[in-house]
Amino acid sequence: MPGEKDRRRSIGARRNPATEAAVLAAAREVLAEAGYAGFSVDEVARRAGAGKPTIYRWWPNRADLLAEVYFADRAARIPEPETGRLATDLAALARSYLGAWRGSPAGAALRGLLAEAQANEAALVVLWERFLPRWSEPVRGVLGEAARRGEVEPGDIEMLAELFSGFLWLRLLTGQTDDDRAAIDRVARLLASARGRKV
Amino acid sequence: MPGEKDRRRSIGARRNPATEAAVLAAAREVLAEAGYAGFSVDEVARRAGAGKPTIYRWWPNRADLLAEVYFADRAARIPEPETGRLATDLAALARSYLGAWRGSPAGAALRGLLAEAQANEAALVVLWERFLPRWSEPVRGVLGEAARRGEVEPGDIEMLAELFSGFLWLRLLTGQTDDDRAAIDRVARLLASARGRKV
Repeated sequence: MPGEKDRRRSIGARRNPATEAAVLAAAREVLAEAGYAGFSVDEVARRAGAGKPTIYRWWPNRADLLAEVYFADRAARIPEPETGRLATDLAALARSYLGAWRGSPAGAALRGLLAEAQANEAALVVLWERFLPRWSEPVRGVLGEAARRGEVEPGDIEMLAELFSGFLWLRLLTGQTDDDRAAIDRVARLLASARGRKV
Repeated sequence: MPGEKDRRRSIGARRNPATEAAVLAAAREVLAEAGYAGFSVDEVARRAGAGKPTIYRWWPNRADLLAEVYFADRAARIPEPETGRLATDLAALARSYLGAWRGSPAGAALRGLLAEAQANEAALVVLWERFLPRWSEPVRGVLGEAARRGEVEPGDIEMLAELFSGFLWLRLLTGQTDDDRAAIDRVARLLASARGRKV
């Protein structure tokens, strides 16, 4: 990719806080109005009154910008439930995620991030390095607490987190972010009762 | 969308079998060589020696073409395992799917179909109506057999299928189609032991 090396070298370039805020606000606005379908760096630059080269210097890949919009969206600050039982914690957590994504810039940003990662190796790296670890913190928190209470075997945490995440992503990607209470409660009970040890 | 209605009206227009085969072969070839990143109707039309209007008449949306390439790929014909136990059936099935997607036109087509559905409402409809029911047949088959043996409650089939599908999609979308035996076997045991009834 021509210019890729130069861009990478300057990722750390000092950002102008006012321009940075304008770009993030514009990206958020575009996603809120038009979803990922209407998202383009051209449109973000136009609304922010910023140059495209500036945007690409600070966010070398559209996925970088989408990930930053995601975490800047208040809706995406998912509280860690503390109902004291894994099944009810997982159900509450699933409801929080899907509710946070429903018609929000965060939801559109995540749809976009996952879509970009299919066509673009650099976006896949952003998904892995900048998005996933931070995104999955509440999931790991709930499962870690359950392990401390003896509800989950520590060796199962990893794959339970992946099954739970996979369910939420599938719902988002297939446009099902509604509060499907029966399905969510059943998935939560399935995961809370699952055991991965060899028998 | 201008022209959308006309296109829809002529979806059923008789296809010329030779041109149809050339387009599908070209689409498959582009996906095999360049993945979804390099996939475009322009390139498919060029290689197939077909006109873009013809392609759009027969496959009104790129997602239509991607879904058709998926099911035409021999790799995507997933055999239904019959080990006699749900955990080993699910592990075998997960291995078949991930193996079928690894570096194949089918894998690139599915990544593309999921990506397109994030930016395009018509592609989401293709995913729902033309892809999902057919794609999930082996998963439902394995779970249905397990229910007949008494290993699964019939009321859990739906959400177990969704959890299993979500796991496979998450692996595909994050570029992890390798044969991660420990993870696959553990996921299979987790799902086979899960119970969704209220307690």
